[in-house]
Amino acid sequence: MESHGKNHQKDLDDDLSLKPITLSKYSNRVELKTLLERSDRGAGLVGKKVVIGGWVKSSRAVKKDSPPPPPVVVVPSPSSGGDQSHTTANIRCTEIIQSKMSIFRRFFDVLSGGGKTYPIFDKTELSGQKAAPPPEYVFYFLISDGSSVSSLQVVVDSALSTVPATQLMALGTCIVAEGVLRLPLAASAKHVIELEAEKLLHVGTVDPEKYPLSKKQLPLHMLRDYSHFRPRTTTVGSVTRVHSALTLASHTFLQYHGFQYVQVPVITTTGFGEMFRVTTLLGKTDNKEEKKPAKEKDGFSIDTVKAAIKEKTRLIDHLKRSDSNREAVVAAVYDLKKTNDLASQLEMKQKSKPGTLVKSEKLDFSKDFFGRDTYLTSSGRFHLESYASALGKVYTFGPRFVADKIDNARHLAEMWNVETEMAFTELDDAMDCADEYFKFLCKYILENRHEDMKFISKRVDKTITTRLEATASSSLLRFSYTEAISLLQKATTRKFETKPEWGVALTTEHLSYLTDEIYKGPVIIHSYPRLAKPFYVRLNDDKKTVAAFDLVVPKVGVVITGSQNEERFELLDARIGEFGIAREKFEWYLDLRRHGTVKQSGISLSMEHMLLFATGLPDIKDAIPFPRSWGNANN
Amino acid sequence: MESHGKNHQKDLDDDLSLKPITLSKYSNRVELKTLLERSDRGAGLVGKKVVIGGWVKSSRAVKKDSPPPPPVVVVPSPSSGGDQSHTTANIRCTEIIQSKMSIFRRFFDVLSGGGKTYPIFDKTELSGQKAAPPPEYVFYFLISDGSSVSSLQVVVDSALSTVPATQLMALGTCIVAEGVLRLPLAASAKHVIELEAEKLLHVGTVDPEKYPLSKKQLPLHMLRDYSHFRPRTTTVGSVTRVHSALTLASHTFLQYHGFQYVQVPVITTTGFGEMFRVTTLLGKTDNKEEKKPAKEKDGFSIDTVKAAIKEKTRLIDHLKRSDSNREAVVAAVYDLKKTNDLASQLEMKQKSKPGTLVKSEKLDFSKDFFGRDTYLTSSGRFHLESYASALGKVYTFGPRFVADKIDNARHLAEMWNVETEMAFTELDDAMDCADEYFKFLCKYILENRHEDMKFISKRVDKTITTRLEATASSSLLRFSYTEAISLLQKATTRKFETKPEWGVALTTEHLSYLTDEIYKGPVIIHSYPRLAKPFYVRLNDDKKTVAAFDLVVPKVGVVITGSQNEERFELLDARIGEFGIAREKFEWYLDLRRHGTVKQSGISLSMEHMLLFATGLPDIKDAIPFPRSWGNANN
Repeated sequence: MESHGKNHQKDLDDDLSLKPITLSKYSNRVELKTLLERSDRGAGLVGKKVVIGGWVKSSRAVKKDSPPPPPVVVVPSPSSGGDQSHTTANIRCTEIIQSKMSIFRRFFDVLSGGGKTYPIFDKTELSGQKAAPPPEYVFYFLISDGSSVSSLQVVVDSALSTVPATQLMALGTCIVAEGVLRLPLAASAKHVIELEAEKLLHVGTVDPEKYPLSKKQLPLHMLRDYSHFRPRTTTVGSVTRVHSALTLASHTFLQYHGFQYVQVPVITTTGFGEMFRVTTLLGKTDNKEEKKPAKEKDGFSIDTVKAAIKEKTRLIDHLKRSDSNREAVVAAVYDLKKTNDLASQLEMKQKSKPGTLVKSEKLDFSKDFFGRDTYLTSSGRFHLESYASALGKVYTFGPRFVADKIDNARHLAEMWNVETEMAFTELDDAMDCADEYFKFLCKYILENRHEDMKFISKRVDKTITTRLEATASSSLLRFSYTEAISLLQKATTRKFETKPEWGVALTTEHLSYLTDEIYKGPVIIHSYPRLAKPFYVRLNDDKKTVAAFDLVVPKVGVVITGSQNEERFELLDARIGEFGIAREKFEWYLDLRRHGTVKQSGISLSMEHMLLFATGLPDIKDAIPFPRSWGNANN
Repeated sequence: MESHGKNHQKDLDDDLSLKPITLSKYSNRVELKTLLERSDRGAGLVGKKVVIGGWVKSSRAVKKDSPPPPPVVVVPSPSSGGDQSHTTANIRCTEIIQSKMSIFRRFFDVLSGGGKTYPIFDKTELSGQKAAPPPEYVFYFLISDGSSVSSLQVVVDSALSTVPATQLMALGTCIVAEGVLRLPLAASAKHVIELEAEKLLHVGTVDPEKYPLSKKQLPLHMLRDYSHFRPRTTTVGSVTRVHSALTLASHTFLQYHGFQYVQVPVITTTGFGEMFRVTTLLGKTDNKEEKKPAKEKDGFSIDTVKAAIKEKTRLIDHLKRSDSNREAVVAAVYDLKKTNDLASQLEMKQKSKPGTLVKSEKLDFSKDFFGRDTYLTSSGRFHLESYASALGKVYTFGPRFVADKIDNARHLAEMWNVETEMAFTELDDAMDCADEYFKFLCKYILENRHEDMKFISKRVDKTITTRLEATASSSLLRFSYTEAISLLQKATTRKFETKPEWGVALTTEHLSYLTDEIYKGPVIIHSYPRLAKPFYVRLNDDKKTVAAFDLVVPKVGVVITGSQNEERFELLDARIGEFGIAREKFEWYLDLRRHGTVKQSGISLSMEHMLLFATGLPDIKDAIPFPRSWGNANN
């Protein structure tokens, strides 16, 4: 128990050995978290019989009656983003069975990710065929069930399995085992308990030739091609648990402070900017006749791809300049390479294939499903306002869509936002709300996802927990856009692509300079020029600026935007004209000013950007399970 | 205090007068809930100065130095669904000012919903014009801010207002007032405190000629045309707060039991059945040139409208037979009338206008935004499974879309579901989960939305709280589809449109017979015929049935569906073939069976159907703020 010194007091306080083991709710197994995240790390459970289930993170075979193998390190050393790496440097079996048949070497190379230290068996020895009685082995598995970052060592006698050993041992195999918890036999083991299996209740094999995670240590950007498998890596598992915590924390924080949840629609007739159309007029491509999903992206104009290349090059420069970790730079370079490839393909193909776009004029949208044009919503705040004008404080959480042809590390076509609207409030109130909500989230994950954050700080970003702690306990600096511009203008040694002059929108490099270099932390910038923010933002008395703000954080950029909305009918009406927006679409919104108008303000938090800040991940495509971006929607 | 006898003990326990008044978070006002939902109903706050804000629910004017008017009843009598009816039967001002100018009569008729007892002023008397000094009045307002079902009486001296009295008094006017809390002057008042205003800080007027809620007592089905205003009615306000509570209860229940929230995508390439296409190929209809939203629905075939009429007629029959309240029947009849009108229009127009549909063959979807066909998701469970196969127990909450041309009281094109997937579980586990989750929701709203449920039971459904209490405390009966069929066959006196024979899908009337008439409560029906449930459901050993279930409740129908999913690759593959579904779209899903497959099951709760059950509302269009259904998407 020496290795867990800081838990001693807690150990004394509650006699854990008396506590029964809680079954996983709705399942006849015990979650590993229940065993491994006790303050005694399971010591009090020795001798108990349990059923556990999980997936193989690493495996070793040792001939029976050999001494037990040395311990495995449960939390792997910090290296790359992707993993399955519990085995990496720690496979030093006492008895490495040498390869006897070279025909299997390739197979095992795949299985073990090309490592040379993996045990190799003779086919007849371990395949479970009846021809010859197989020699007896003891398998040591590290099993993870995703309930926590920790894995359990499971010891299985080869006699228990009818599945060939090579299959049983493959990374990713699903195993459900009944057995008895015991102290590890190896004196030097770092883990406190392990399971001696008595029965294998289920084995779900993998085909290592085809299973992408068989190649260990895949970096995050390569894992993106396997979004349905990547939660099986420790890093993505931890990120998902943090994401989950942020979601619960959001609902809890807002409802605690009197906000009512309101279900705003995804399909809408209201909005502006680039939007996705929702239609049934084109029918569904018939399943049976469907062509293979088009992998080629020749629908994109070369101009937009070139613009993307320019933006990505800029991002790489920025990442190199700032103190980003190597992983971020590697990912960005890989990303740029893919876009360059696309550009070459496009230039080749574009000449030979003429476009076959059908102009929308030919379609009669009054015959569409809803009898009119409908789109995917880009913001829930309009609809939310109508409920704020009745219930006071309301919020929602839903998907928001932008059809801009942008593909970079900060943008997705589908992102999920938490949005609030509050009647009887002004800009300062919205800034207070953003400030406290944001800090609550930081604090919440530090307190409630301690193990995952420890792992993420080792694997992704060493500074992440200190950064979150500093943010949670400090008060965020607030200054105006005008002050921001004058700060940027003072940076005479610094060359900005966009010259900081009053009236220009603040760019990524401006925001990065202010948060990464000047303030080294999150800030709130408010009172933007009237044309830099949407039409619904309230005009300030100076007539030049509007009551909007952004909460900007280092490395990521804007995490929360907010504004006081224009409650005066005439001014809102004029702003709609100023922006050249179709008034008809906003008649119902104007109605809210015609009848019982009230001062109101609200905020919008991008959950994916929040998750980037909370984890230090460099790319937004890793902050959502199934990213949708320009040219990418895989499942 | 006699009227609050049951609170006496609580009053003695805590000296509320010592408690400070809590300001609304992020606003310089006090929420009415804070004042009115204390156990002393505010008595301890007399003499305190506060700022409050809200919208006028009723108003009366009394000439100064007249005795104060008799009390108003804060919670109106049970009558129709819609409201704004605090004024309805209770306007018995001590001094009714008689109309002097007939020109204003129409105006006030609209203002007061045609009532004859409303005070009528002379224009010069109350319009605030400088011409003649206006006589002095005292206004009595009932103000609601949506924080609870209760309203506060606010007393305003006409001298405080620069806004003409007629405007100030209109229903729906927004008022922010500073004043002092006092005991009501009228001895017979039922309310404990009221606010004597000292300053009006903000007045947001309405235009009663155009404000739809000026007509009081609009029934729910007519309010649907004003979805942006209807939260201002007491009924929709209460329903929204119950909806909000169900949302928080869901997250809390699932996370407490170890489920991780996973963000599954809305845009997908995976799915089957009628789906909405997401595209940018057709562009956005240009804002400026856009025609007025097509109100006419001539895109719908007469056949589908006729089918809708048939279904609606059946619903009305059903409602009349069962013990539904009158409101439900009236709403259904109104709905049928609208559909009949549509049918007539269609028959007239259809001959003259040929369709102009463009066939999908002409479009090249490889040039679309994502480089392939993309749709709005109909279920999150596929994507969720990939996370269950790594994290164990996961859930999500998001919009699900079905493009079937159905328009009835139980179906929407966009509905929000809570979905779970649990690795290492079977059908029984999923049924346990559904059972406990469902009962938790019932219990939660009884305990946490007491005031709103009291109001809803008065206004919408008298039996609702007893029904919820019974459900929360009983255990749900479970029986198989086969047993259900034999029960239905025993009902020899009952004529079903679809004859109950083994193999047919259970229809609305079957489910209604079982839950409304036989069991008079929610039941779980499981083990359906293999073709009655989707391809991914696990085949039972009898090879005839599959491991699926439905949790069915009286009046509403299915609230939760669930299933154990087919974990065996060969069987899943065969089922995909059996259903004639494009295998390519489900390759990634099959991957989950190829690599580390595990027994898993999950459930899907329709939040809107749950809300119907929880409130007794008869139509799903009132269970979501902005309903999207065939031919309807208003904002």
